[in-house]
Amino acid sequence: MEYEEPLFFHVIQYAAGADRDVVNMVSGNPDWEPPAALREGLRAYADGDAASFQYPPSEGLRDLREEIAARRGVDASRVIVTNGAGEANYLALARALERNAGREVVLTDPVYPYYPGKVSMLGGDPRLVPVREDGSLDLDRVREAITDDTAAVVLNTPNNPTGAVYPPETVEAVAERCAAHDALLVVDEVYDHFVLDAAFESALALDAEGVIVTNSFSKSMAITGFRVGYGVFLESLVDEAKTRHMLVNVTGSRPAQAAVSHALRETGPEYYEAARERLRERVATFTGALDDAGAAYTSPEGAFYVLVRFEGFPGTMANAKRLIDEAGVAGMPGEAFGEARADWLRFALVTPRVEEAARRLVDFFD
Amino acid sequence: MEYEEPLFFHVIQYAAGADRDVVNMVSGNPDWEPPAALREGLRAYADGDAASFQYPPSEGLRDLREEIAARRGVDASRVIVTNGAGEANYLALARALERNAGREVVLTDPVYPYYPGKVSMLGGDPRLVPVREDGSLDLDRVREAITDDTAAVVLNTPNNPTGAVYPPETVEAVAERCAAHDALLVVDEVYDHFVLDAAFESALALDAEGVIVTNSFSKSMAITGFRVGYGVFLESLVDEAKTRHMLVNVTGSRPAQAAVSHALRETGPEYYEAARERLRERVATFTGALDDAGAAYTSPEGAFYVLVRFEGFPGTMANAKRLIDEAGVAGMPGEAFGEARADWLRFALVTPRVEEAARRLVDFFD
Repeated sequence: MEYEEPLFFHVIQYAAGADRDVVNMVSGNPDWEPPAALREGLRAYADGDAASFQYPPSEGLRDLREEIAARRGVDASRVIVTNGAGEANYLALARALERNAGREVVLTDPVYPYYPGKVSMLGGDPRLVPVREDGSLDLDRVREAITDDTAAVVLNTPNNPTGAVYPPETVEAVAERCAAHDALLVVDEVYDHFVLDAAFESALALDAEGVIVTNSFSKSMAITGFRVGYGVFLESLVDEAKTRHMLVNVTGSRPAQAAVSHALRETGPEYYEAARERLRERVATFTGALDDAGAAYTSPEGAFYVLVRFEGFPGTMANAKRLIDEAGVAGMPGEAFGEARADWLRFALVTPRVEEAARRLVDFFD
Repeated sequence: MEYEEPLFFHVIQYAAGADRDVVNMVSGNPDWEPPAALREGLRAYADGDAASFQYPPSEGLRDLREEIAARRGVDASRVIVTNGAGEANYLALARALERNAGREVVLTDPVYPYYPGKVSMLGGDPRLVPVREDGSLDLDRVREAITDDTAAVVLNTPNNPTGAVYPPETVEAVAERCAAHDALLVVDEVYDHFVLDAAFESALALDAEGVIVTNSFSKSMAITGFRVGYGVFLESLVDEAKTRHMLVNVTGSRPAQAAVSHALRETGPEYYEAARERLRERVATFTGALDDAGAAYTSPEGAFYVLVRFEGFPGTMANAKRLIDEAGVAGMPGEAFGEARADWLRFALVTPRVEEAARRLVDFFD
């Protein structure tokens, strides 16, 4: 195989096959309710006329694109509704690599493993730049890595797995360096609703050229299975991205788009705030128990992951499986995210049983 | 742009913007009702628990894959549920071209324009082989076109746009030639439920190596907007196809998969037979009116398109637009399907107004 399969599903399957109760903290699947309007929208769609069951426009339902555009402060012509942010990132990277303006894609280490997988699949070379111990970008090292052979840089903020939120001036500095070397900057903001103690500032607000922003409703509406995401492309690149979208997928799934379109209009800020509050409580509970155990961990500024380092127990796949079998807690091995966090394990706070999980970990390492 | 955008959406938009009533016969969007169980399945899904709104397995919901596998007589491990047959064809062609066993993909002329678009996008070279005047494969020419530089052959049967259904022995002969040159044969069977006067015989029943079959529920359940299709891959290629599927789309949309899974189990043969009967009537009505006008046309054995040739009025985009504006009938220009049917126009029988459309055409050419 020329490119690597991300290991999420492998760990999930191993946990599902375990011969004991396991607290599943592997994947970023929210365990909370979607907005009420999401279910309403899907029910209304199910009762619609037969014509509404046919192809939507390839770039997505007009109502949905216009609502996204209005909220993001961009022209709707720049928005392509995709099969989740996963497809949006694929389209952005494909465009970056097809421009013949470099073969390298600069990524952070630790890295969301789909990024290097996509880059390799598209014939590019991933180049991983370690972040600092606290998860912040090492701007000098990132700048240094961007050369004329750089096709694109991908930043994920709020970040999975570190929980870091990059300040706008940092993202802007990366964008400037990208522009100087004719590279695109792809900013994946899927966790934008999960900044715990501040408002999130999107890269769309930057005065920067060459920025593509990707996002989805998977996390903000707790619907990872719906596959409704989007990319906000540069005017100069949007037509090519639309063509690839059409040639790969024709269009995204309409029931999901219709439900999201309804929910986006009808859901107030209290829904998103309740999700953040739930997350704050879980972070406090989980890290409090880790404190008692003396484990090292990252307390996230955003997203919903905690990286934990247990002394003498590196983040290998073997150790992740051992925790499943012997502690009854499933997390992702840090080595799945690159070299920089290979000593760590990542736990997703997407279960009401974070206290139980923390207790089991403390007991196991006691 | 390195690859061409199929023109369907362009013609549809032009027709939608016309300053008069237009009978839309452009795209293959069924105008009939989906199975009742499809709506039931979607309603039940909307009321399901929050966990059912999260990622399904990347390769598709297990129930759906197992039902597909049972119906197609294959092992479920070979089935990947995709975002429509469009993605399944993309995955199959990507695998064919990544094997480094040839760069050419042999297609028929006329051709469904997404195929050469996908091939070019993936870095391959489309090679079009004209079919005979009646739409049947010219087996000698197809055989001759298959060489050691052939990565794959794509056959669409029942065929869009010719309406031909290729006999199993013809498909088998192509498969044998492919096997002799280490090429894959991709057989797209999305119109399998629309063979008008016989049972369809799938390429899965052939005793042939190297065959990938793609399909979807878009046409059979009248849900082109749901994007639920699948590929039945060779055991030796399924893992690589799954990885690409994961890296591009993560997975397909779950509400649509859940609704299709329910409908597939609960819908009897009478639903599909009623759709065929409707189509038979429309073919008779439309071609009867064309007879009166003295136009040349193809009467389909399968799928739901009629190719029509009007004397001195070739199938150009300009003429398709003229028919929209001046006759009030929208069809696809034959030149969009290659050279071989550039004198023809394609009309999709997906409107109850086929009689009106035929009358308008007769009047226009009178």
